[in-house]
Amino acid sequence: MQVVLDYLKQNQARFVAELCELIRFPSISAQPQYKRDLVACAGWIVKHCRQIGLEATLRPTAGNPIVVAKTPRAKNSRKPHYVVYGHYDVQPPEPLDLWKTPPFEPRIEGRNLFARGSTDNKGQFFAHLKAAEAYLKTGTPLPCNLTFVIEGEEEVGSESLSAFLKKNCRELDCEAIVISDTGMPSPKHPALGYSLRGIMAFEISLQGPARDLHSGGFGGAVDNPAMALSQLLGSLRDKSGRITIPGFYDGVKPLSAYERKEYARLPGTDATLQKMTGVRKLFGERGFTSSERRSARPTFEINGLTSGYQGEGSKTIIPSWARAKITCRLVPDQKPEHVRKIVLAHLKKICPPTMRLEIEAGHGAEAYFVSPTGKQAQAALRALEQAFGHKPIVTREGGSIPIVNQFKKILGADSLLLGLGLPDDSAHSPNEKFSLDCFENGQRMSALLWQELVR
Amino acid sequence: MQVVLDYLKQNQARFVAELCELIRFPSISAQPQYKRDLVACAGWIVKHCRQIGLEATLRPTAGNPIVVAKTPRAKNSRKPHYVVYGHYDVQPPEPLDLWKTPPFEPRIEGRNLFARGSTDNKGQFFAHLKAAEAYLKTGTPLPCNLTFVIEGEEEVGSESLSAFLKKNCRELDCEAIVISDTGMPSPKHPALGYSLRGIMAFEISLQGPARDLHSGGFGGAVDNPAMALSQLLGSLRDKSGRITIPGFYDGVKPLSAYERKEYARLPGTDATLQKMTGVRKLFGERGFTSSERRSARPTFEINGLTSGYQGEGSKTIIPSWARAKITCRLVPDQKPEHVRKIVLAHLKKICPPTMRLEIEAGHGAEAYFVSPTGKQAQAALRALEQAFGHKPIVTREGGSIPIVNQFKKILGADSLLLGLGLPDDSAHSPNEKFSLDCFENGQRMSALLWQELVR
Repeated sequence: MQVVLDYLKQNQARFVAELCELIRFPSISAQPQYKRDLVACAGWIVKHCRQIGLEATLRPTAGNPIVVAKTPRAKNSRKPHYVVYGHYDVQPPEPLDLWKTPPFEPRIEGRNLFARGSTDNKGQFFAHLKAAEAYLKTGTPLPCNLTFVIEGEEEVGSESLSAFLKKNCRELDCEAIVISDTGMPSPKHPALGYSLRGIMAFEISLQGPARDLHSGGFGGAVDNPAMALSQLLGSLRDKSGRITIPGFYDGVKPLSAYERKEYARLPGTDATLQKMTGVRKLFGERGFTSSERRSARPTFEINGLTSGYQGEGSKTIIPSWARAKITCRLVPDQKPEHVRKIVLAHLKKICPPTMRLEIEAGHGAEAYFVSPTGKQAQAALRALEQAFGHKPIVTREGGSIPIVNQFKKILGADSLLLGLGLPDDSAHSPNEKFSLDCFENGQRMSALLWQELVR
Repeated sequence: MQVVLDYLKQNQARFVAELCELIRFPSISAQPQYKRDLVACAGWIVKHCRQIGLEATLRPTAGNPIVVAKTPRAKNSRKPHYVVYGHYDVQPPEPLDLWKTPPFEPRIEGRNLFARGSTDNKGQFFAHLKAAEAYLKTGTPLPCNLTFVIEGEEEVGSESLSAFLKKNCRELDCEAIVISDTGMPSPKHPALGYSLRGIMAFEISLQGPARDLHSGGFGGAVDNPAMALSQLLGSLRDKSGRITIPGFYDGVKPLSAYERKEYARLPGTDATLQKMTGVRKLFGERGFTSSERRSARPTFEINGLTSGYQGEGSKTIIPSWARAKITCRLVPDQKPEHVRKIVLAHLKKICPPTMRLEIEAGHGAEAYFVSPTGKQAQAALRALEQAFGHKPIVTREGGSIPIVNQFKKILGADSLLLGLGLPDDSAHSPNEKFSLDCFENGQRMSALLWQELVR
């Protein structure tokens, strides 16, 4: 095993240069004019995988092609099989004027590599490729079979991936998916993500008068939809920060003592969070810390409000309607369809008789949870500790990663979320960067992980 | 007196033709390209006034000129002096495609004259001019001196009028102002308006995080400005429709038994109002009828709501801020500055500690009230009854007419609101019309009014 780690150590400069080459492709999936760059980027990865000893193919989809690269299999190999997931597409770099240097011209400053796609996700999946290379190039037998699945539509919804997984579910049947596409709380806190929040989106509108009415002529005798909506929405959260919809917390898995202890180990204080967000005062559900609230508790969030006149000055009207965009973040084991049902039933029940309630359903996704004390999780934690030299932490993510649900649903496999990003990496923002320490430690973690998983 | 009324009867056809001539001027004050049409229109009125025997001049202002036309005064006349107010400017006719015939080409259909400006306000003030003509052309002595003040900026805020009134307050010193620029509830309900609501406008915004936050990463630990605003606004009205701001009803003059009896005589039922507005159910302050709520009670109206994402689909953010545009309709004897003070103090008091409250003050105007049982009002009611052949009604208007406050403040005189418009006249809308019956009855009412006022 030492030879693998030595190989990694000795080849860092070349690895960084290769990563820079990969980053130079403006593989922006959201903008159709970059279609050829996406294909070129995928082609480069296939070629590179072959150079390092993987059996790689470019798989066409209805959208952007998917790179599939496998470690060579011995005949009738009974080694356990793991899938490593990544994506070669990146976010648009706009606004360009906020970049210190051009987004697709990698710039190294100290131990950071600045470029669009550096942390999200090229640098992160490339670390896993380099770990495989170390095994293959040193002739060290890999204790498991690996299949890399690198897609090109993650930033636009991974639409082609589902069909691809369904079509190739036998080929991709595996013990677990390894994904480095999230973050770690600090360089001293390597992390294993074991839970993601789900989501349930909808839009409601209250329709009052058939058209905007003159507030002088009618005001007082007709209910105001903006007021009715305010009262309706305002009633849904109490003073202790709890959502008042009956049944909203049905199925919410309570935090275990172990989880709360891990939460308490997280770096960053409420003061940090307050400064970061710029709020006057933090607020959340009584009985939970800010970190717990951000990832282990469900939310009812108004994302947008629209009613009446929004221009300069004033317009003396009773608006005809008022609308709110809402997303609920869900946690294990809430079911999106159940939450949708009880939320909408409650809204219908409390809608005042003066208003017509219209509801437009949006997308929904279940929360994700895999035990942080399970065998695979423990293996990942050992690998993290050895690679980073710090005791790792297990974390719940507050956001959602839809592909994790896809993997679970279609392949029946759990995901190990081994994010290598740092909180200041500016993913999706100007001056995105990736820490070269995280890159190197990530390669080591990957190399060690395959050993730990079969232990 | 009969000779005056006969003259009016005999000349209706010519009067309508003259009114059509006046209406053909596209005297749109809101659109600068019509500046010359406004001046031409004012010039036509001056010329016409002179033809009918008035002493008329065009008075320049910083904006559009004001027509001032006087009945000839006997030397050392001690007759009481009344001012008749009107405006020759009109609303823009847009949207043009909704007009059945071009807005400035008068069309007569049955007993209605369709055109922009027909009811608002050319037809209405022209009725008063024709009454004066009848006196002058028949050599009948007028029992009072009249001064017509016809301005050209009513639809854009009457800015030049205040300065004009201040500069000429001695010349315009009078017993009362007569204004036909409102409406009557039905052809069988000639009306004297004796009260107007005032207004107090402002805008509030709640500022939460310094920028929109990812609802996955932060949701639960940070208060949502759209929710905070909903709760804040929603708390301001109780289930019985009363505004909960302490002191909000300070000074509200209770309705007298006479007033409530007059309200009960108004045509139109709640069913009519519901149909007209298209609401599912009417709503308002307990203890008052819809008609009373619309004009005799103060309101707290949200005119607009803005927060977060308002485009297609969903965006998973905690909005940085939420904003509401608000106008309160005020009634006699609420004071706008007092209401502003207590409303803003209450908002500051209930603003949650998680939010920064910002308040932007808007315009304010006092409500207007003149006793409907006073001497002048009784004279007007007698004139209305004789002219229309129906028992008139006294009404409170729900809206505000800022010039009435100006007249009171600068000239110290009350206004007699003798509206000749009907509810289906579509003032400010496509296919505006004026009833030729109202035109004719209005002329008679004006002629009789001068007799009744001196009785």
